[in-house]
Amino acid sequence: MSEPAPISRFPVPPRSELPPDLQERFAAVEERSGFLPNVFAALSWRPDEARAFFATHDALMDKETPGLSKADRELIVVATSAANDCLYCVVAHGAIARIRARDPYLADQVAVDWRKAPLPARMRAVLDVAVRLAVSPVEVTAADQAGLREHGLTEDDVWDVGAIVSFFALSNRLAHFAALMPNPEFYLMGRVPKGH
Amino acid sequence: MSEPAPISRFPVPPRSELPPDLQERFAAVEERSGFLPNVFAALSWRPDEARAFFATHDALMDKETPGLSKADRELIVVATSAANDCLYCVVAHGAIARIRARDPYLADQVAVDWRKAPLPARMRAVLDVAVRLAVSPVEVTAADQAGLREHGLTEDDVWDVGAIVSFFALSNRLAHFAALMPNPEFYLMGRVPKGH
Amino acid sequence: MSEPAPISRFPVPPRSELPPDLQERFAAVEERSGFLPNVFAALSWRPDEARAFFATHDALMDKETPGLSKADRELIVVATSAANDCLYCVVAHGAIARIRARDPYLADQVAVDWRKAPLPARMRAVLDVAVRLAVSPVEVTAADQAGLREHGLTEDDVWDVGAIVSFFALSNRLAHFAALMPNPEFYLMGRVPKGH
Amino acid sequence: MSEPAPISRFPVPPRSELPPDLQERFAAVEERSGFLPNVFAALSWRPDEARAFFATHDALMDKETPGLSKADRELIVVATSAANDCLYCVVAHGAIARIRARDPYLADQVAVDWRKAPLPARMRAVLDVAVRLAVSPVEVTAADQAGLREHGLTEDDVWDVGAIVSFFALSNRLAHFAALMPNPEFYLMGRVPKGH
Amino acid sequence: MSEPAPISRFPVPPRSELPPDLQERFAAVEERSGFLPNVFAALSWRPDEARAFFATHDALMDKETPGLSKADRELIVVATSAANDCLYCVVAHGAIARIRARDPYLADQVAVDWRKAPLPARMRAVLDVAVRLAVSPVEVTAADQAGLREHGLTEDDVWDVGAIVSFFALSNRLAHFAALMPNPEFYLMGRVPKGH
Amino acid sequence: MSEPAPISRFPVPPRSELPPDLQERFAAVEERSGFLPNVFAALSWRPDEARAFFATHDALMDKETPGLSKADRELIVVATSAANDCLYCVVAHGAIARIRARDPYLADQVAVDWRKAPLPARMRAVLDVAVRLAVSPVEVTAADQAGLREHGLTEDDVWDVGAIVSFFALSNRLAHFAALMPNPEFYLMGRVPKGH
Repeated sequence: MSEPAPISRFPVPPRSELPPDLQERFAAVEERSGFLPNVFAALSWRPDEARAFFATHDALMDKETPGLSKADRELIVVATSAANDCLYCVVAHGAIARIRARDPYLADQVAVDWRKAPLPARMRAVLDVAVRLAVSPVEVTAADQAGLREHGLTEDDVWDVGAIVSFFALSNRLAHFAALMPNPEFYLMGRVPKGH
Repeated sequence: MSEPAPISRFPVPPRSELPPDLQERFAAVEERSGFLPNVFAALSWRPDEARAFFATHDALMDKETPGLSKADRELIVVATSAANDCLYCVVAHGAIARIRARDPYLADQVAVDWRKAPLPARMRAVLDVAVRLAVSPVEVTAADQAGLREHGLTEDDVWDVGAIVSFFALSNRLAHFAALMPNPEFYLMGRVPKGH
Repeated sequence: MSEPAPISRFPVPPRSELPPDLQERFAAVEERSGFLPNVFAALSWRPDEARAFFATHDALMDKETPGLSKADRELIVVATSAANDCLYCVVAHGAIARIRARDPYLADQVAVDWRKAPLPARMRAVLDVAVRLAVSPVEVTAADQAGLREHGLTEDDVWDVGAIVSFFALSNRLAHFAALMPNPEFYLMGRVPKGH
Repeated sequence: MSEPAPISRFPVPPRSELPPDLQERFAAVEERSGFLPNVFAALSWRPDEARAFFATHDALMDKETPGLSKADRELIVVATSAANDCLYCVVAHGAIARIRARDPYLADQVAVDWRKAPLPARMRAVLDVAVRLAVSPVEVTAADQAGLREHGLTEDDVWDVGAIVSFFALSNRLAHFAALMPNPEFYLMGRVPKGH
Repeated sequence: MSEPAPISRFPVPPRSELPPDLQERFAAVEERSGFLPNVFAALSWRPDEARAFFATHDALMDKETPGLSKADRELIVVATSAANDCLYCVVAHGAIARIRARDPYLADQVAVDWRKAPLPARMRAVLDVAVRLAVSPVEVTAADQAGLREHGLTEDDVWDVGAIVSFFALSNRLAHFAALMPNPEFYLMGRVPKGH
Repeated sequence: MSEPAPISRFPVPPRSELPPDLQERFAAVEERSGFLPNVFAALSWRPDEARAFFATHDALMDKETPGLSKADRELIVVATSAANDCLYCVVAHGAIARIRARDPYLADQVAVDWRKAPLPARMRAVLDVAVRLAVSPVEVTAADQAGLREHGLTEDDVWDVGAIVSFFALSNRLAHFAALMPNPEFYLMGRVPKGH
């Protein structure tokens, strides 16, 4: 069994010293998930940045549209975070993707090689644009975006693809910079049917 | 003279239709700068994301420390945005860097080849880490961060280096995705001594 | 739940039509593991290549030395197969690595970012050389190999590092070319303590 | 204000010691431009190479054809020199491009992201081939050249595209090797309307 | 004249100490070629791996089909080994390719720039897929393989393309790792017409 | 035997129509070498560029110094032209390097993998800087140049390293753009001892 690594390379203040709104939010997350994902702890020494981070996350990820489901949004995170070699985001959002997609395999398949994952043509087009925006943003064109519209994404969905990739470009780099480690809980989530 | 391009590939609502807090903020910016930078207009159709974007910007960029001046912070933006080929951020933050650094040449030098720009050893180390975090985040190590501490950056300054790069990793990608064009005003700012 | 994909893009003959030695080997593997890993099926239409493949595998992987344990060998496979985006090898050898290392997390950590995985200095040096040999073989030097010796690897161990990487350079490419999919069993193996 | 850097890492002989033909040429350039661009000084310690350099420059750049104007030729230099991170050539030829194109913005746009610059389809095709020839010459094909002919370039124009890129592949590398710095005059040229 | 380098960085046992089957094979090769190619010597300290290596080689390379001649197979080796900067394989298989193709120039042309080599469209398609599989295996698609079928390759030929590239991905890495040097004989083979 | 390809994609005027000075030069070269290298023919439709090209070539390549022999200069061309995949320059200058170095193997070794070629430490340092300048010029530093001085190169020799690389950055791109093919004579030159 490997050594437990610290949550972050930067200070992690005790929960009791955080501003009340963050304490409340963290308690609510913990209540819902059964544990506090490490990203919350790692950002908490910078409350303003933390609040903006969570606000952006919620605006982009807690949204279900015909063109881009919650599961689809998580898979965008998994594919682009894998392209950025970001352990925390691949493991944490891989877990959420397994649950949202009700598929125990798809997140790992998308993380390692989204091109061969069993995805509909729409999501294949989405991930092609997303991964390109993540690793070589200058190469994304208006024609790429028009292609997504042809797959049924609305103008809002297209923006969301770009904004999710952009937000996790930030998130992946912060996680690398802080050497943020995933909570052990994430690795198993969504792999075993409930009630098992 | 080249054709004027639209501000963004996505909708730009009329100012009068924005939420009051954004209208106020935009008016204040316009009052101070003499014009409204296009990034404000381009984000305004998504008020929650816009608010989080500006909050993050202010938390990281409006800060002067002995280890990382406002000018230094702008140069981080210029160097990493150039590495990402982001026209809007190179031109807009190049302008601000010229003003903050009171140097009409340094921003262009950093944008094209920061390695040969006339910078102190401290900023050379900062930009080396910053550009690596921008283009190959997996390669930034704890030793890199310790190196910045040896150049006099505090733990807060080191985080700020990482957070600024991360925030502009987001910003550069949104700007590419929206094909955001710089306002014409930025190109000349800080190039000619005031009163000329 | 995503669609089941075919095992390979190339013919997979019925087991009963295989040469007797392959039938025997496949039966033994199936007996031991509870299922036949898809790589056996995918190679079986080319018996000579299959025999050479399994012989090379066994010569390199079924070996425990003080300098390079079976778990270490599997982690070399995981790290370099991830660098080659090879779904089959990351998932199958990730499973074996979890079991050999008795660690439910380490294989995923090594797959996404071996640099930040909680590994001893010896294995960090091994993976540095291994991944370089996988992606840019011209850059591996005699000094790299001397470095591994200083970490306690024997001359045989050093060769094994190179030979394992080389063998999976072959294996990863065959798996991509055949679009080989991992058996569902692999995804969960070694994640839950036995008897659970 | 940043420190003045030396013109070159190599010797720069006094003007009075140069061969008469170079002295004359330098005087004429200085007369016309108001200053002597540093590339002249930096090459002057090698008169034969300097003469060949200027001869090639003039053969390719002082030419106006319907398919490739002087401004277009300068934009090729700006785009490919930016791809090579060459400060001297981006700043010096950016200045000339602003003047030749009578556009204060276009050179900066082409330097940072020519793909989104407001250019006609012809120049978009030219820069696509030019930048590819600069960074990955093996990938330029006869079909690329035929594509330029369809945009109205003559056979001579097509050669000039290739020859300009090739000449600045040389020029960019010499400038990097000598750490050639742009004259301060270049930064502002062509940004402010004359008579201002 | 340059210094003779050792055959391998790893032990090369005397021929007399090898297992009898390897001694026989080596003697037969030497009889046929007039010398023993260094790869045989370099692998001989690992008899099991050596046997599997030669078995795979023979299964893939000693085969003449309408869709993929022996010469074609050698050119696949030359092109992909050049992409991997592998001196031994480029020189040794370049020699064999010259003989098989009865062409003293083609192997050098394919090694340096297969795109401009005078090859039929079929082999151009084969090398495009082969080199991509060698350097970026994730990018090879089912459509690429269908394209090879349209050029007349059978399903077996297509597999052979993939298997040859995969086998030399292994071989190139072992050769780099052992710093295997080509026998002097290879450099001149097939360059001068017999009887000259 | 493969089809003869045209010398260039661009016009090759008949010798008799060339300006007298080029006719003379071509005749002298042909007299000395026994054939006219294709680069002369390919450049001849542009006499001014051709003259500057040959003048630069002669200024840099026809020079023997203690720090950088004629053979060394040719090997710089071979190594950097190989990095640029330039068939004409690798084959033509490989031939000249074999003759100048009186070594039938070294040019091929340098072309495929200069790092493992049997070279003195001085030339290893030279080629390290040269290839970096060829493929990533921004990364060559003053410290690299100081390193070459420590190996005994004079200031003039160091410039020559940079200038040779720069000149062949031009030459390689022109050769690619014109699809210039090597004369058949080059392939065998220097491989067989004279008098054979």
